[in-house]
Amino acid sequence: MDEYLAALRNRTQKLYALEKVLPPAEAVKVRRTFIEEETGTTLEHVGAYTMAIDQAVKKNIENMIGAVQIPVGVAGPLRVHGEYADGEYYLPLATTEGALVASVNRGCSAITAAGGAEVRIIRDGMTRAPVFATDSVIHARSVVDWVEANQDRIRAVAESTTSHGRLIGTMTSVAGTSVYLRLEFDTKDAMGMNMATIAGTAVSTMVAEETGARLISVSGNLCTDKKPAAINVVLGRGKTVVAGVHLTEDLCRTIFKTSAAIISEVNMRKNLVGSARAGALGFNAQAANVIAATFIACGQDPAHVVEGSSCITTVDPVEDGIYVAVTIPALQVGTVGGGTGLATQRECLALLGANGGGEPAGSHAKKLAEIIAAGVLAGELSLLGALGAGHLAKAHQQLGRGEVPRT
Amino acid sequence: MDEYLAALRNRTQKLYALEKVLPPAEAVKVRRTFIEEETGTTLEHVGAYTMAIDQAVKKNIENMIGAVQIPVGVAGPLRVHGEYADGEYYLPLATTEGALVASVNRGCSAITAAGGAEVRIIRDGMTRAPVFATDSVIHARSVVDWVEANQDRIRAVAESTTSHGRLIGTMTSVAGTSVYLRLEFDTKDAMGMNMATIAGTAVSTMVAEETGARLISVSGNLCTDKKPAAINVVLGRGKTVVAGVHLTEDLCRTIFKTSAAIISEVNMRKNLVGSARAGALGFNAQAANVIAATFIACGQDPAHVVEGSSCITTVDPVEDGIYVAVTIPALQVGTVGGGTGLATQRECLALLGANGGGEPAGSHAKKLAEIIAAGVLAGELSLLGALGAGHLAKAHQQLGRGEVPRT
Amino acid sequence: MDEYLAALRNRTQKLYALEKVLPPAEAVKVRRTFIEEETGTTLEHVGAYTMAIDQAVKKNIENMIGAVQIPVGVAGPLRVHGEYADGEYYLPLATTEGALVASVNRGCSAITAAGGAEVRIIRDGMTRAPVFATDSVIHARSVVDWVEANQDRIRAVAESTTSHGRLIGTMTSVAGTSVYLRLEFDTKDAMGMNMATIAGTAVSTMVAEETGARLISVSGNLCTDKKPAAINVVLGRGKTVVAGVHLTEDLCRTIFKTSAAIISEVNMRKNLVGSARAGALGFNAQAANVIAATFIACGQDPAHVVEGSSCITTVDPVEDGIYVAVTIPALQVGTVGGGTGLATQRECLALLGANGGGEPAGSHAKKLAEIIAAGVLAGELSLLGALGAGHLAKAHQQLGRGEVPRT
Amino acid sequence: MDEYLAALRNRTQKLYALEKVLPPAEAVKVRRTFIEEETGTTLEHVGAYTMAIDQAVKKNIENMIGAVQIPVGVAGPLRVHGEYADGEYYLPLATTEGALVASVNRGCSAITAAGGAEVRIIRDGMTRAPVFATDSVIHARSVVDWVEANQDRIRAVAESTTSHGRLIGTMTSVAGTSVYLRLEFDTKDAMGMNMATIAGTAVSTMVAEETGARLISVSGNLCTDKKPAAINVVLGRGKTVVAGVHLTEDLCRTIFKTSAAIISEVNMRKNLVGSARAGALGFNAQAANVIAATFIACGQDPAHVVEGSSCITTVDPVEDGIYVAVTIPALQVGTVGGGTGLATQRECLALLGANGGGEPAGSHAKKLAEIIAAGVLAGELSLLGALGAGHLAKAHQQLGRGEVPRT
Repeated sequence: MDEYLAALRNRTQKLYALEKVLPPAEAVKVRRTFIEEETGTTLEHVGAYTMAIDQAVKKNIENMIGAVQIPVGVAGPLRVHGEYADGEYYLPLATTEGALVASVNRGCSAITAAGGAEVRIIRDGMTRAPVFATDSVIHARSVVDWVEANQDRIRAVAESTTSHGRLIGTMTSVAGTSVYLRLEFDTKDAMGMNMATIAGTAVSTMVAEETGARLISVSGNLCTDKKPAAINVVLGRGKTVVAGVHLTEDLCRTIFKTSAAIISEVNMRKNLVGSARAGALGFNAQAANVIAATFIACGQDPAHVVEGSSCITTVDPVEDGIYVAVTIPALQVGTVGGGTGLATQRECLALLGANGGGEPAGSHAKKLAEIIAAGVLAGELSLLGALGAGHLAKAHQQLGRGEVPRT
Repeated sequence: MDEYLAALRNRTQKLYALEKVLPPAEAVKVRRTFIEEETGTTLEHVGAYTMAIDQAVKKNIENMIGAVQIPVGVAGPLRVHGEYADGEYYLPLATTEGALVASVNRGCSAITAAGGAEVRIIRDGMTRAPVFATDSVIHARSVVDWVEANQDRIRAVAESTTSHGRLIGTMTSVAGTSVYLRLEFDTKDAMGMNMATIAGTAVSTMVAEETGARLISVSGNLCTDKKPAAINVVLGRGKTVVAGVHLTEDLCRTIFKTSAAIISEVNMRKNLVGSARAGALGFNAQAANVIAATFIACGQDPAHVVEGSSCITTVDPVEDGIYVAVTIPALQVGTVGGGTGLATQRECLALLGANGGGEPAGSHAKKLAEIIAAGVLAGELSLLGALGAGHLAKAHQQLGRGEVPRT
Repeated sequence: MDEYLAALRNRTQKLYALEKVLPPAEAVKVRRTFIEEETGTTLEHVGAYTMAIDQAVKKNIENMIGAVQIPVGVAGPLRVHGEYADGEYYLPLATTEGALVASVNRGCSAITAAGGAEVRIIRDGMTRAPVFATDSVIHARSVVDWVEANQDRIRAVAESTTSHGRLIGTMTSVAGTSVYLRLEFDTKDAMGMNMATIAGTAVSTMVAEETGARLISVSGNLCTDKKPAAINVVLGRGKTVVAGVHLTEDLCRTIFKTSAAIISEVNMRKNLVGSARAGALGFNAQAANVIAATFIACGQDPAHVVEGSSCITTVDPVEDGIYVAVTIPALQVGTVGGGTGLATQRECLALLGANGGGEPAGSHAKKLAEIIAAGVLAGELSLLGALGAGHLAKAHQQLGRGEVPRT
Repeated sequence: MDEYLAALRNRTQKLYALEKVLPPAEAVKVRRTFIEEETGTTLEHVGAYTMAIDQAVKKNIENMIGAVQIPVGVAGPLRVHGEYADGEYYLPLATTEGALVASVNRGCSAITAAGGAEVRIIRDGMTRAPVFATDSVIHARSVVDWVEANQDRIRAVAESTTSHGRLIGTMTSVAGTSVYLRLEFDTKDAMGMNMATIAGTAVSTMVAEETGARLISVSGNLCTDKKPAAINVVLGRGKTVVAGVHLTEDLCRTIFKTSAAIISEVNMRKNLVGSARAGALGFNAQAANVIAATFIACGQDPAHVVEGSSCITTVDPVEDGIYVAVTIPALQVGTVGGGTGLATQRECLALLGANGGGEPAGSHAKKLAEIIAAGVLAGELSLLGALGAGHLAKAHQQLGRGEVPRT
């Protein structure tokens, strides 16, 4: 230990290269100790973990010093009627924000009492969009033409890089002399960014060679990865999922202590008109909370919460109640790769019967997406109900009005 | 244990109410065992944690069954020249996505070699925007008038609910008969959503009483919390932070194996034009990755990555190189409350000298914001550099062109 | 004539400079003849106009060859209850799109039968936002600080350039090293772009001198002029106007042959949810049609239809019917300057009692804004009603359902 | 006359029905006189027009009282190298905003001096997107499935309603229980909204019958017509056109009195970064001005300026200068139908050799689109150049800096 600490201090040993000279667990320990000394702090709890270090330092992290612990709670049982998830589930939520699990849990109760959430995946495809530089708008147009005329070659090159992936389609966009080629892949149970990037790189090389365009970046931001972008709302990225439930007036009253009309009004003025007035790309109450908590629990990439937050929540007045639905245009999930192999994350996925590759391939990722969408619906219901009951009712009381508002 | 499991099974004991009849650690264990049985899985690693359960179940989580472990790596040293953070830091990043820490680490090397990142907070205020229903557009206008005429009363009521918070200002928006009142608070070292919500509720009650408007929701989505929304880009939410660094041509070549002109072109075609073409609200490469990883490490609310992802990355050609900057309009951070008190998260904050309340109040949250912004800059530099070097150079080579592209 | 045509042909006479050597009417005629010859076409009708050429070539147009005639129809009477417009009006609409006037006319009937449209201006201010380049984010921040500390000087310089205008406020935004200074003016009866530009130039010069920032452009696109931009939705530009009307169930049936519930559903699924799903910045049916037609009739700048199209249409269920409202965040109008002085346009403004400067100053522009907003409301009502009656009813019939849909 | 005026006054004659009892010219005269009396104004100039009234009242306008005259100027010659427009053109601009024609004219000079604008149409298709209500998300998904499985039937029904139009493709989007079906048509020389609406209605009826979904509106706002919407930026609507030109350093200096580097910087800080900071959907300087002026001159629908304003202007540094381009994702034009048949408008189209149907069908509309795109490019060049020369240079002077700025 001391020897390596000394070497780190006098810079003869690179901090990130400790794994080259020490076994992983040792390397992490030496690094943590060095950081403790450099910063004058103790990292006792960060140093306490049970995951398999060998795997983590190879696949998930560099310059590792330990782990943070995020508390996990469960919401459920949540009844789901999807095409891949059909049954009752306990949703694992990793969060440090008090009241979130309780909120989702209440929504799960409502959904399950209502007979379950109906869920459907409308579209499924992971994207990468390289950007090329051309010499002129005429050159740009010729690249577009080449791509349209060579779909078979593009598919062949793309699929030569992957054993599981399949190219679903391509779309070109031009902006001046820049040409963007959005490639969409079926990546089965993997979230698929790596697969799409590798295939995208191979395709890009060919396009550059054949057209004389210069490849600027394998990601030209029309993918769009981890930035709020209307293209993902319009075209989808990852899974486009909708989940809905019919809540009777009776359930609105017994579970949420409010009425169908009030929940409908809260959704209209807050989620629809409010978001419109804010120039928003998300029309929901708290979709990001549920997505973040399930993503962290289940080893998903938490930066993909950005895309998930573009959810649209709708409330239709129907006979004897309301039909509440969430539409998530871009939900990127996987059950293999990324953080899904780490011990605690794998256990959380197993809770949902969705760890590892599914049979057939892709079915586990779809199952996970359906369950998360139902969870998002639970979160929306719960918050709309709470707002309707708590605040609206209270306000009415204060104003000396009757229980049911005019609108 | 068995007794409680039996009670859970026959539903005489509510799952969420175990803490009422058992000490926290026991309750969590019984709940975890019950879930294991119900789902036929084992939660061995989820059950291994070192955090103080009493505190967690009170403040951070409900229905707790354990914890997930997220590996933490460090990037740095990162030299920062802010008004609150001034020195070299090791940035803790909690992530399961391989290569992220390495990428940020390389960016930190570049920044530190360049003399450090200049960082400034341009604006600071946490918001809540209740929505009210009125009877007509005339009534709506009268609510707006009342708010403008009663700023002192609004301030007094708002600040009566908090010992630390201060009301910075108000803004009203009307959409038909809906009136939105955006309240902005200085919440010192707290991220401030709770403070803003409590104060917002008090103000809302008064506004409703005085104007006859009905309070629909204490959040009308003009806050805007955890949804991508232009209002946050335009007005800011939490901290608006900019960080920049001057990279010489020499550093571009030695660290990134590319040139200033190429980095500039990648930023233009990808981050600016590409995002414009995608209808995006974020003009960056991977800001969300860095924000998510630091947020999870440091006990921040990971759903706030949504707002952080609206970052704009700019590259100016300057004498002998480029000036690269990131602008994060809405970065919501705190060093007290939320997940900041949990053992591992507190240790990560301590790494940065930013755990707990600062002296003066607010200085720790500002310090954290400055460091994270510098980390985002590191991530942008690194990815732009990699794209410029790897792909662009390779493409040039393939095309038989010289090292420096035409543009 | 021939002499000048010859000179134009052999390029000894510049086409645009004919007014320097000929009286305006002659210059226009020679230019038109030259163009006819060059293009082998006849411009007989373009050559037929009655406007005062002297004024037109001085203030409104260069290189004039004549005029296009746009047919004008009237919709009304339209009853308006505004603060500046109070009475019944015939709205002049200049359009070539058949059915538009009839559609608006039907909406006017409904509004007038319902007792009139309630209209209020919520906010009023024309903006210009110069952009400055700075050396670093620290320099950028210092410019922001200077602006905040020198509001009085900025006001003095801005108002020294105008006899009528008044500086309402300033807002700074930073993006990397670019600083944007959004200046907002009360421009009375003028639409105000020129006034704002002149004042903005004076302010910009001072800011550049005092801060060392370089002025890049007197418009930095945060104004935002004639581009769809959320900043205008959030902050307003020109007039922010709302107009609403209470339609009884009876009026829905007699005038629109549909029901309040159906109009409400059409608005929800089309204007709110549909626009959300499209990534739109406008949540209405045809606001742009009405704004374009009134703008062209009344001598307004038709490119400002862009901002006007960000209208939000809302439908509230109320006792015995619905309350329908339109919210136009950015309506830029004037009754002096621009095209308002041309003969036909002045006559159209006179129709509304809004030609020339008002007493007090600004009241004519506000009156015009209120009337146009009521006209937009008429257009929305009419289209929502037509969709509800025609299509929805027909669909129901076809499906063998009853008259009132389930939802 | 008097008899009809009396009948109008005592309401035994409907104002809009005068054409049923009088010849068009007479009806318009009586109506105008009535309006003059009602409003106490004179409409002398509005009453002076030369267009064929019979046609106008049948196709273009209802409740006609006369016409407004918009002055027309020409900019040019403008050299265009498109696939449909190849030659030099004088662009007719109808505007009341002084300096606009002069500005575009200067841009035309630059383009023509540079050898002409390269123009390409990247995509072409007019859209209509009906919205349907379903009972549940499962029902919604089944409608999507039906549409995907019945493309041939949809095509057959759509094309049965039109002699010229062709269905290019369909896209479905789901939001909760709402299903949107975006139909895209090749409408040849017509702008095509009517054709698309008629075909869309026929398709909608079939979809409703076959799926049990209720048709809510033949336009569900995913078209998106006349509202700013990212879907049009992403997918295009009407014609997606790009135009570019290579400007040498020498031309930048001689025509614009500035430098390539300055024009590049103005575009970056204003059009790209400024618009990003404003949450804009348009990244240009004044595209809407040019589109509005050409649209009004040429009988296009001026409300379509909304979509046109989403233009992206790019400036690439190239050897010895810059390559400046405009990308207009959604330019909706036609040379038959709408206002194109009116006398003055037809003459303006004839100026461009683009009046009436082209040979082959569609070539005139495409020619018009190419010329307008080149005109937009002229407007952008001119304004960027003016900003660069005037303001930037002046600022430098004031600051005592050299002619060429640091960046």
